[in-house]
Amino acid sequence: MPAYTKKDFPTDNVRRFLEPGPIILVSSAHKGERNIMTMGWHMIMGFSPSLVGCYIWSANHSHEMVRQSKQCVINLPTEDIATKVVKIGNSSGRDIDKFAEFGLTAKPGSHVRAPLIAECYANFECELVDTSLIRNYSLFVFEVVKAHVATAPKYPKTIHYRGDGEFMISGANTSRYRKLFRPGML
Amino acid sequence: MPAYTKKDFPTDNVRRFLEPGPIILVSSAHKGERNIMTMGWHMIMGFSPSLVGCYIWSANHSHEMVRQSKQCVINLPTEDIATKVVKIGNSSGRDIDKFAEFGLTAKPGSHVRAPLIAECYANFECELVDTSLIRNYSLFVFEVVKAHVATAPKYPKTIHYRGDGEFMISGANTSRYRKLFRPGML
Repeated sequence: MPAYTKKDFPTDNVRRFLEPGPIILVSSAHKGERNIMTMGWHMIMGFSPSLVGCYIWSANHSHEMVRQSKQCVINLPTEDIATKVVKIGNSSGRDIDKFAEFGLTAKPGSHVRAPLIAECYANFECELVDTSLIRNYSLFVFEVVKAHVATAPKYPKTIHYRGDGEFMISGANTSRYRKLFRPGML
Repeated sequence: MPAYTKKDFPTDNVRRFLEPGPIILVSSAHKGERNIMTMGWHMIMGFSPSLVGCYIWSANHSHEMVRQSKQCVINLPTEDIATKVVKIGNSSGRDIDKFAEFGLTAKPGSHVRAPLIAECYANFECELVDTSLIRNYSLFVFEVVKAHVATAPKYPKTIHYRGDGEFMISGANTSRYRKLFRPGML
């Protein structure tokens, strides 16, 4: 199991980790209960404030927990805990405490009551800032208010869902194309 | 330059290619003009209908072209044309015809007037189905109405943006975790 040392990270730069499209784990807490869901449908919606849109279906146990507590933590898991990630996505917080069931460590956040998952590479504490798209689109708009990122490795080996039980594992990283960017685009 | 043979593909399964989070090229046409933009902020918002949310900033030349024509094509580029993808993202359709400038082939779609980019692995013809989130979030909700996907290779080598001029190239694919899924989750 990974044991990361983490540092504070600028919230307006969490796109470095979310824009490549990894599977994330969304943790929440409400009325003495805690839960985790596996999520593939999310997108960056802004830098500053740092906005992330997440699709949480109304049938997910996390839906009401997040809607009512107005908070969550977006956690970035890596390949070494992929089995846990899949099991989390194939069980319900109605039946089990996923932290206990899957041997994950809940750490207190500094800005929200939702727990951070210690075994994840990064943890983004989020506040729900717009509930108006939930009814039509199950779309929760979060603002990242505090970011914790592992000091090493530089690039996490993330898992990306292809549907139908298949994953893509993140591959090589390159700065080869950086010289083609206009300065204002970086 | 890649030359793909393509087949029709079920629109409710385009998540296979978009959910892993690749950079996409959005092509559009309006009043005799055509354009392409490079996009990293997008998410799947539904299967059936097949919905994709895309962030198109109001300063992008494509913003008004897509808003007024109510159509676009989402094209999936691969690593072999990464240089063109970056150049497309660092130039404006106000100044140049990007198809001509970057030597890309515009192919007619079957359902929309926006052109398909032949050199891309997949082309998803889209209709703009909700304009209500454009003003507040620059968020365009599209329905994929027709999908064309290359017959080979099975998995495209896509490029995923990390910000700051850096990309992650898609890595290995695995079905190793498939046995952990409940049948209803596949």
